[in-house]
Amino acid sequence: MIVDFSIAPIGHGESLSRSVAEAYRIIEASGVRHEFHAMGTNLEGEWDEVMAVVDACRLRLLETCSRVSISLRIDDRKGAPDRLGRKVASAKAKAGL
Amino acid sequence: MIVDFSIAPIGHGESLSRSVAEAYRIIEASGVRHEFHAMGTNLEGEWDEVMAVVDACRLRLLETCSRVSISLRIDDRKGAPDRLGRKVASAKAKAGL
Amino acid sequence: MIVDFSIAPIGHGESLSRSVAEAYRIIEASGVRHEFHAMGTNLEGEWDEVMAVVDACRLRLLETCSRVSISLRIDDRKGAPDRLGRKVASAKAKAGL
Amino acid sequence: MIVDFSIAPIGHGESLSRSVAEAYRIIEASGVRHEFHAMGTNLEGEWDEVMAVVDACRLRLLETCSRVSISLRIDDRKGAPDRLGRKVASAKAKAGL
Repeated sequence: MIVDFSIAPIGHGESLSRSVAEAYRIIEASGVRHEFHAMGTNLEGEWDEVMAVVDACRLRLLETCSRVSISLRIDDRKGAPDRLGRKVASAKAKAGL
Repeated sequence: MIVDFSIAPIGHGESLSRSVAEAYRIIEASGVRHEFHAMGTNLEGEWDEVMAVVDACRLRLLETCSRVSISLRIDDRKGAPDRLGRKVASAKAKAGL
Repeated sequence: MIVDFSIAPIGHGESLSRSVAEAYRIIEASGVRHEFHAMGTNLEGEWDEVMAVVDACRLRLLETCSRVSISLRIDDRKGAPDRLGRKVASAKAKAGL
Repeated sequence: MIVDFSIAPIGHGESLSRSVAEAYRIIEASGVRHEFHAMGTNLEGEWDEVMAVVDACRLRLLETCSRVSISLRIDDRKGAPDRLGRKVASAKAKAGL
């Protein structure tokens, strides 16, 4: 499955960049396949491994703030691994772009 | 934490009511505190118990279809249990409604 | 269409209740059909009227903070008006609850 | 503001690639700054121009199906234009990646 994951502390000032950097380090160290984008990170893997990464980011942020907001959008398709790098190229080709 | 949870099969016809009914039964049987609303269900509990309910719904839907879409919006606030029934009343009071 | 709408200022402290109260007043005064729930508000109407309410809440919050986060999940179904009050009851009935 | 935008027809079979291709063409032709990613498209611009693109995609899909699901996550920050290409690089730099 692919998960579009976004996390932010609530009540920690307008800049979220320190929290985003913490999450980036956890994601990068996790070994889970991923693509950062401007509004979140797409993670690809099985339920347990992807959710472990999300939970680790959540627990890390809760060490330094007391409220966290998380958004997850999941696309789970049986028998369709390794879609992360191909979805955009495939859609662009179909669109003739 | 409170999670706004929504799940739908992809490619199973325009009516989603059978899948929603399956999810309702799993949620109701789980014992996890919840409130159904028109666009999803708010679940309240610890990470592990809430995610177990979401995963059970996911696995049930994948028995009869091959692609599932899930949306989760999480509000995790330390030391703030039992907010589910009080958030709307509290906001209405503050709004003078 | 039905829209699950959530809005929050970023960097304004941990409590969001004042902003939520502002949004509640705008929604209530708009005349657009709605249901508040613990994680957002379901709005029902045509694209233009629903989006006008969302935009009004956005502009109001930006008067007192400089960064706002909004989540919208839209279910747009042709020829299906007045679903807001009936969706949960219908799903519960199908689930035998 | 930046908007993470995702759209899908409901009840049109498991493959969404034709609809995604239609949306890609509309987005590309709109002139609005954007980045496609595996789970959606990040659009950057003022409220009116971004929402016009979303509405155009919605209306196009409703020509060939009768139910559409849309997700929008908006990050609206005053005085912060042209963030689309810089957010990931900035977060990576802060994370030391």
